[in-house]
Amino acid sequence: MDRIPILKMGPFLLVTIQVDLYDRLALNLENDLISMVSKTGARGVLIDISAVNIVDSFMGRILGNIASMSRIMDAETVVVGMQPAVAITLVELGLTLQGVHTALNVEKGMDLLYNKTDLLSQQQDDEEDREDPNDYND
Amino acid sequence: MDRIPILKMGPFLLVTIQVDLYDRLALNLENDLISMVSKTGARGVLIDISAVNIVDSFMGRILGNIASMSRIMDAETVVVGMQPAVAITLVELGLTLQGVHTALNVEKGMDLLYNKTDLLSQQQDDEEDREDPNDYND
Repeated sequence: MDRIPILKMGPFLLVTIQVDLYDRLALNLENDLISMVSKTGARGVLIDISAVNIVDSFMGRILGNIASMSRIMDAETVVVGMQPAVAITLVELGLTLQGVHTALNVEKGMDLLYNKTDLLSQQQDDEEDREDPNDYND
Repeated sequence: MDRIPILKMGPFLLVTIQVDLYDRLALNLENDLISMVSKTGARGVLIDISAVNIVDSFMGRILGNIASMSRIMDAETVVVGMQPAVAITLVELGLTLQGVHTALNVEKGMDLLYNKTDLLSQQQDDEEDREDPNDYND
């Protein structure tokens, strides 16, 4: 396998990392993600790393790169599902994952993205706008 | 890696299959999925196989098993992101994936699940109920 699938979920992209990221795979992921952000106009990227047991400085750098690239493309990045041991290792390695938001799981990550991007309030406004005609019918 | 992560997305579960399913991994996936359905009360299971290039009768059987088990637990199963070559192989192998719904991508699969489970209409009803107090304020 030389590509990690990227799933479009509404205004966000979801990536589940299940295998060790080696150079080529990581580069492909960066490229694919950025082209998907550009193609779909996604406002956020969710990266699930719940299956990742071991994290090293390479992985930390890749996550940071993706976050920086996405931000330039006007998309926020949230890393979700980090295992406690991975968090400990990251701190011990001195990696702070700068510019990367984190959340406990995908649902919380999605809520965070909705808050960050103000999409939810826009959506609610839209819904209220759509419901106005009904009010006149009452 | 001996487990495939299962992500909870609202009322549904999402699984992305990125590696070849061997016996133990497939058994773990079946067990994990069924316990997650039971624990979370999920109404649907989305299985993304966009990263799967090769499908064999074993894989077909596993997908069928998951669908049958989920149905007993009152959850529908939708397989999404199937590559054209995989669909060709499945038909040539004579595997019809009975009981498994399919959709082109995760978003369409989620729409299908919302339709199948009638969750969307319930949700809209709830929203309308919630909005009633505002109507009186007008």
